[in-house]
Amino acid sequence: MSDVTKELLDETQGYVEQAKAKAAKAKKPWQTWLDAEWGFRNHWYPASLSRDLGEGDSKGIELLGEEILVTRQEGKIRALEDRCPHRGIRFSSRPLFYTKETLTCWYHTWTFDIEDGNLRTILSSPDSKMIGKCSLKVYPVEERKGVIFIFVGDIEPPPLHYDVAPGFLDDNAVVYCAEPYDINSNWRLGCENGYDPGHQFIHNWSEMCINAGMHTSYGYTSTKEDVLDTTRYVELEDGPKGFTRKVEKTTFRHEASIPLKDGSKKDLMLPLARGKSKEELDQLTAIIRLGTVGLWMPASLKVTTFPAPHCTHYEFYVPKNKDEHTYFQFGVIHTDDEEEAERWLGEDGRIMWEVPAVQGFTVDDAFAREQMHKYYAEEDGWQRERLFQPDVELTMWRQFASRHARGIQTEDHSRGYFKRD
Amino acid sequence: MSDVTKELLDETQGYVEQAKAKAAKAKKPWQTWLDAEWGFRNHWYPASLSRDLGEGDSKGIELLGEEILVTRQEGKIRALEDRCPHRGIRFSSRPLFYTKETLTCWYHTWTFDIEDGNLRTILSSPDSKMIGKCSLKVYPVEERKGVIFIFVGDIEPPPLHYDVAPGFLDDNAVVYCAEPYDINSNWRLGCENGYDPGHQFIHNWSEMCINAGMHTSYGYTSTKEDVLDTTRYVELEDGPKGFTRKVEKTTFRHEASIPLKDGSKKDLMLPLARGKSKEELDQLTAIIRLGTVGLWMPASLKVTTFPAPHCTHYEFYVPKNKDEHTYFQFGVIHTDDEEEAERWLGEDGRIMWEVPAVQGFTVDDAFAREQMHKYYAEEDGWQRERLFQPDVELTMWRQFASRHARGIQTEDHSRGYFKRD
Amino acid sequence: MSDVTKELLDETQGYVEQAKAKAAKAKKPWQTWLDAEWGFRNHWYPASLSRDLGEGDSKGIELLGEEILVTRQEGKIRALEDRCPHRGIRFSSRPLFYTKETLTCWYHTWTFDIEDGNLRTILSSPDSKMIGKCSLKVYPVEERKGVIFIFVGDIEPPPLHYDVAPGFLDDNAVVYCAEPYDINSNWRLGCENGYDPGHQFIHNWSEMCINAGMHTSYGYTSTKEDVLDTTRYVELEDGPKGFTRKVEKTTFRHEASIPLKDGSKKDLMLPLARGKSKEELDQLTAIIRLGTVGLWMPASLKVTTFPAPHCTHYEFYVPKNKDEHTYFQFGVIHTDDEEEAERWLGEDGRIMWEVPAVQGFTVDDAFAREQMHKYYAEEDGWQRERLFQPDVELTMWRQFASRHARGIQTEDHSRGYFKRD
Repeated sequence: MSDVTKELLDETQGYVEQAKAKAAKAKKPWQTWLDAEWGFRNHWYPASLSRDLGEGDSKGIELLGEEILVTRQEGKIRALEDRCPHRGIRFSSRPLFYTKETLTCWYHTWTFDIEDGNLRTILSSPDSKMIGKCSLKVYPVEERKGVIFIFVGDIEPPPLHYDVAPGFLDDNAVVYCAEPYDINSNWRLGCENGYDPGHQFIHNWSEMCINAGMHTSYGYTSTKEDVLDTTRYVELEDGPKGFTRKVEKTTFRHEASIPLKDGSKKDLMLPLARGKSKEELDQLTAIIRLGTVGLWMPASLKVTTFPAPHCTHYEFYVPKNKDEHTYFQFGVIHTDDEEEAERWLGEDGRIMWEVPAVQGFTVDDAFAREQMHKYYAEEDGWQRERLFQPDVELTMWRQFASRHARGIQTEDHSRGYFKRD
Repeated sequence: MSDVTKELLDETQGYVEQAKAKAAKAKKPWQTWLDAEWGFRNHWYPASLSRDLGEGDSKGIELLGEEILVTRQEGKIRALEDRCPHRGIRFSSRPLFYTKETLTCWYHTWTFDIEDGNLRTILSSPDSKMIGKCSLKVYPVEERKGVIFIFVGDIEPPPLHYDVAPGFLDDNAVVYCAEPYDINSNWRLGCENGYDPGHQFIHNWSEMCINAGMHTSYGYTSTKEDVLDTTRYVELEDGPKGFTRKVEKTTFRHEASIPLKDGSKKDLMLPLARGKSKEELDQLTAIIRLGTVGLWMPASLKVTTFPAPHCTHYEFYVPKNKDEHTYFQFGVIHTDDEEEAERWLGEDGRIMWEVPAVQGFTVDDAFAREQMHKYYAEEDGWQRERLFQPDVELTMWRQFASRHARGIQTEDHSRGYFKRD
Repeated sequence: MSDVTKELLDETQGYVEQAKAKAAKAKKPWQTWLDAEWGFRNHWYPASLSRDLGEGDSKGIELLGEEILVTRQEGKIRALEDRCPHRGIRFSSRPLFYTKETLTCWYHTWTFDIEDGNLRTILSSPDSKMIGKCSLKVYPVEERKGVIFIFVGDIEPPPLHYDVAPGFLDDNAVVYCAEPYDINSNWRLGCENGYDPGHQFIHNWSEMCINAGMHTSYGYTSTKEDVLDTTRYVELEDGPKGFTRKVEKTTFRHEASIPLKDGSKKDLMLPLARGKSKEELDQLTAIIRLGTVGLWMPASLKVTTFPAPHCTHYEFYVPKNKDEHTYFQFGVIHTDDEEEAERWLGEDGRIMWEVPAVQGFTVDDAFAREQMHKYYAEEDGWQRERLFQPDVELTMWRQFASRHARGIQTEDHSRGYFKRD
């Protein structure tokens, strides 16, 4: 049993299964989580897929509310503030790279070093005193496994792997990338929905489950003891921070009942569980039990043995702004066999991961996140929500994330109020 | 002469026909009306037509800013807060009625009693301590005459007929329902336009009038004495509150003139009045004179002998939110003859009421209400309007409504801040 | 050398070419310019083209946020507040001119004198006490050269020609009018982009330049001495206020270079300048040097010899509201030859001015203005911008405009809070 698990459980258990009055008055210990509407600052985030940015290409993206120009010059990715200090022009609307070292503003020819962001020259005024005196913010960039990661913050960035769930960056990890898309929901609801043990019920509507005849459940549940037993934290100084739940001890309910007024009850069974023998039911459950689900700082989920036993599913809920997040999803296998790797990046990954997981399963998660947004954004949901026991795994995450966040993004950051070198 | 009429006239007469300076400074005695941007709380409102909600159907509606799930289960209509206390999900986006007694949230299987709103069970966690400890708001419902009425408020609801204009609920009332639609205007402008004696001029553009060759007028007007004489109040403790104007003494002007600078004047005559003899003109006016027009708490209008002598037109300006109201319209006859009733609900009602009144007449009222909205919503219209004598009938309504309103809806109510049982 | 030039230069020179810290702290001396988000009040503005308002026509327009009904009655243009004092109706949604002297509200027949705005009668209530007691704001109007000008303000309007750049109203000026269009940008960015010496670089993308093989430059620049030498102010008590820059001394750069890290430099040449001899380059530059560019109160630009030697280009950045301006453009020649004038208003103006200048050139200016808007509207651009030497010509304008503005428009004006006669 992990001490961290016990500690977090103790600290947050009092916030679930509470009568309304008490919960409403209680001050939440995860204030950092509540404050992080725009994201956690000083972390690495996926910003684009490598394949969407060829040599010489550039594009404007929005990350935690900040508008950023990303470009690939001589193979290297550069990320720069997309706002000319002169008059605020977005470079990305007419990008000019007259050299591989520089970005020129299309309005007044201010020309910036794309490595350090400094104003190197002004084509029309090479003697201007401004030269060398102002600069764009330059964002640290790492390109790994077909993904462009950008560090949004003010501090010296820690190594990338501190902010990526374990395994993703392994040498023998083969990463199949799905095209990211935007979701009208705050990013925190992405994290919470992804790990939420109770949310599995929504996948009764998922095409993957329906087509596979895969009965899910009315929602995973675990006892407090199981949570203590199956949750494993990683808080290494020199590595990623997060935790995993081993699914093995989870209770899967395929049956439920509703008490009726006349004293009887209505028994329910999940449609796809009907007509199956206990052995058949256990067989599928056994496969799911092999997996682990984990949440990782700053904003990602890792699910092992999903949807196929040898595949690990990673997803990132990247804050775009306070009302949208960009959903990055990756299907990963680990292999040293080059042929297998090549097949995975082609037909295998598509058939064994992208079609079932991305097209057939996580679209329902996206729907759920959007459905929660209004309540949390406009109706004080963070204060008014009424949590039940399975949510303790989320309050533990909120507490954990509040403890490990390197900073909080603000609206001012999104407007360009931050340090430049 | 009604004492109430005199009292209201005396109290509000000073607010019309005033020079600007005075009107601007004067504090209005109908503050409750000014505060009721979101509607009057603690009243009954039409929420849907019965025919639009068959057995087992459900839908989400918005009433005074509150999102409500309405459903029919075993023939009975239930109306529930459309917001799960757990995480704010709108049930209506994936409604689940596993029993006729319950509503289950599609996200985490919280299952509520649709009669009292209590959390009866959680399918995935039947032992949760939350069960029995939280609840949805349940809205009182009455279904009468093909209309689903919902009570929005916190008090013990008075009988439905207190909030419906007389005659509508009569045993022998046969109610033809038009499909309701939303109008981009505050609901109070609906009330005021509907009763407004001066507004009749806009119906010169109405297809019903044009096609029938029915000259309207440049606006009804009545003297103060006529108002005193023809307005009849109903303030029964145990019945509806409202009043009617008997049209009989109203002055209809078909002619008007505009004084010109050169001292002459330009004489005008309504196009449809031209070429008609005085007898022909009087003939039509005489029909209109038979009618009465009435405003009723909380937000409806009743017009007798319209558009046909035996038909009564009812309309409700139901607040959807502060910027929209839903327009319900009904054509009613009173008869004990079953065949006549059946014909009315079929072809007769359509031809004798819906096509002329709804399609050919009140669309112009809807236009006028939308045209007033910006002024009242964004330009302080309620304070800056300059009223003239015919508007005294509206200030009397404002005063009357302020006196009889059972409460005021607020934006907080729309966000779910209200008492639950 | 003009004293005004020196004075304005001295007053504002300290705000360009400054290190960030200093610029950020410095209080700007052109506060009036910063306050004028909605426009300068008490000035004349183009409101419509004459040809778009035939006899008896009317339309609603928005000028500095004020909604105005413009109509032509008996040949004369009238401009009236488009808001009935009774209940705020916009007359323009159903305009009624029962006489050539009056405007009648379509809702309650309030009938206003279109010359003085007074309530002359109410068709339905000719005895109302309101008659003569309330009025619409009436806007002074001048129709000249095919343009309807409206004065927005509260003071006795000065003569129109005080607010129009010289030459436009000359007896022998022949004015070809382009159809105005709206641009999603604050009007001040229009003024600044138009005069901005550095902005010429954007016209490398202009179809006119590309098709004509006309190399532009990396941005005009002038030394401080040249600015002193070539800027000519007009501040006559009884005429327009503005100034012109004679282009003659401007430096045109067709070549530029970017210093590289390895100590070398990358030489650049504008695509259209390549392969041309010095003579050929100078030949074109010489034509441009003939011109002058001027900014004029309240919000317009005059460019001589553009795009053809005998043509003068005028443009107005008319504030529609704080986020949009209406772009009026005119191509003007001066001639006493009636045939030439007629040809100009027909095919000549279209081919020699409208197609190249409006369709092929200023569309790029419109693009640039829109691109600046977010920075100035939402990101404190007016405080955070980092100006370089060529911008001193803009700070001089800001200072000059702040000195000569007759007033500042506010949001309250746009809601109808202003004096009526």
